[in-house]
Amino acid sequence: MGSNPDLSIESHMEANIIQEGSVVVPSRLLSEVIRRLPNAEMEVSVQANNSVKFSCLNSIVTLQGFASDEFPTLPDINENQPIEISKMLLSKMIRETIFAVAVDEARPILTGALMEVEDSQVTMVCLDGYRLGLRKGKLDTSHESRKVIIPGKSLQDVGKIMDEDDQKISITVSDRHVLFDMGYTRIVSRVLEGEYINYKQIIPEDYKTRVKVDTKILADSIDRASLIAREGKNNLIKLSLQDQKMIITSNSESGQVYEEIPIIQEGKDLEIAFNARYFMDMLKVLEDQEICLDFTTSVSPCVIRPITGNDYTYLLLPVRIFV
Amino acid sequence: MGSNPDLSIESHMEANIIQEGSVVVPSRLLSEVIRRLPNAEMEVSVQANNSVKFSCLNSIVTLQGFASDEFPTLPDINENQPIEISKMLLSKMIRETIFAVAVDEARPILTGALMEVEDSQVTMVCLDGYRLGLRKGKLDTSHESRKVIIPGKSLQDVGKIMDEDDQKISITVSDRHVLFDMGYTRIVSRVLEGEYINYKQIIPEDYKTRVKVDTKILADSIDRASLIAREGKNNLIKLSLQDQKMIITSNSESGQVYEEIPIIQEGKDLEIAFNARYFMDMLKVLEDQEICLDFTTSVSPCVIRPITGNDYTYLLLPVRIFV
Repeated sequence: MGSNPDLSIESHMEANIIQEGSVVVPSRLLSEVIRRLPNAEMEVSVQANNSVKFSCLNSIVTLQGFASDEFPTLPDINENQPIEISKMLLSKMIRETIFAVAVDEARPILTGALMEVEDSQVTMVCLDGYRLGLRKGKLDTSHESRKVIIPGKSLQDVGKIMDEDDQKISITVSDRHVLFDMGYTRIVSRVLEGEYINYKQIIPEDYKTRVKVDTKILADSIDRASLIAREGKNNLIKLSLQDQKMIITSNSESGQVYEEIPIIQEGKDLEIAFNARYFMDMLKVLEDQEICLDFTTSVSPCVIRPITGNDYTYLLLPVRIFV
Repeated sequence: MGSNPDLSIESHMEANIIQEGSVVVPSRLLSEVIRRLPNAEMEVSVQANNSVKFSCLNSIVTLQGFASDEFPTLPDINENQPIEISKMLLSKMIRETIFAVAVDEARPILTGALMEVEDSQVTMVCLDGYRLGLRKGKLDTSHESRKVIIPGKSLQDVGKIMDEDDQKISITVSDRHVLFDMGYTRIVSRVLEGEYINYKQIIPEDYKTRVKVDTKILADSIDRASLIAREGKNNLIKLSLQDQKMIITSNSESGQVYEEIPIIQEGKDLEIAFNARYFMDMLKVLEDQEICLDFTTSVSPCVIRPITGNDYTYLLLPVRIFV
């Protein structure tokens, strides 16, 4: 078991227990030792002074440990109405939204990710005031509505720990905690208290310009434009939409980039500017081959969705420029 | 062409030159841009203000450059009696000795690697006062004797740049420089002036204890012992040789390691201690499956060689301990 103020993790494995007991071991050193021991059966024993002996073939490593009396235990959670979700789906939901979580502590609630369950639909939302990432997923069964705000850092750790196999993970929400149960490993995070922003009203329903573009072509072009943009102080790229083409430009003291990519454009021409990194964060993780960008004016948010399905939405505020 | 006070590198490639010219471009930004442009034909042009335009398919990247008038040129070297050596061999010679080069500037000559040529034999030697790495190699033809001391950092860069194919590299030594010529790329390093240490007299010819051991088994054991050793202040491991076994131990406030490995021992038993890192540096790069360790006393150097051949020698000073 390991824990920090936000998160506790407990993991189990089969062992032949000769005598029960517990001890606390320095975690970094322990993992370095275990990684280097041969892949063979190991005997673990704890001596009177809390030193822990790992014997494996011809190696004996002894680590100085501590008494386990004061080690925090996993918070007790009443496993009521757990949500079962495929690990692959949860992993994708985290990956496609988590980068939009607020880093700035000015509005603490935004440092968390909102997870909403309604009937058989689960929605993950992250937003930081400049962009919003939203990913929906389907559950096998219907559930009572509930909401929980999970600290972004905890959710990132959950994503890292989870094997992406086709097994399910069970999520239980209580007033103060959320439990991610994978059977062999259980993760409990505290939740953030308070009301999340009413994100639905932020997402515009109309548009004046709609553009369809190949995700990889757009990502490669913005990536190149970023090289020069990030040398400037605003990390700014400019998009110009006209004649079924998107012109992407950036410039700073170091130079300029000009990129021209083919698009399918519907509606009027537009010039608009964005923070290059906010665009790339999303393009780097989205697996869909083609995306659709909806614009209204050069000062209103752009809404990005995959061409097919309506499971993913990314909303991005433009940067006001004077041209 | 790029250069720093120790090293200059010049590289060529085929191009269709429409108008000759030269310009200086910021190197980091240039390599980042080129890496991100599509794998297609590119047009490079320099404008009047020294800005450099790279056009490739639908991308145009312009980087602000500088006039090339004051850029240093490659030192002129009279390519007299070059030594031809296989890149694979040179690369191995560098890899197996370079870690023993002195980092400390107290004796500047030791921050260089000695390269000696005699008849058809080339020898590379690095030593830092605690250990010595020596690697011999065979040349196809006989050469006049010569010696050169190459800055360790330069030699490391040569090793990094060189493709490890079965082509040859040609090395020319002048009074102040050494040229590594790979045809498409030429590297010139300054050489260190002064006399190198007479390393031959450092290597003992006799031994009282000789041990044969499997390189990987020894490396794995010392690697584990290092985990605990490096938490202490001397990074010390102790070797105990007796009854056809080597016992490796380390201890610090964090714990202890005890490793027992099978050896073939000839001569008397011995207890001796070493800096774990100095042992690992060599074990990590040596490709030979079995090595032979020669010891005299617990305060005299240990000489390590592969079981077969006499091309490689590593000499390691023990750390004096009180047991």
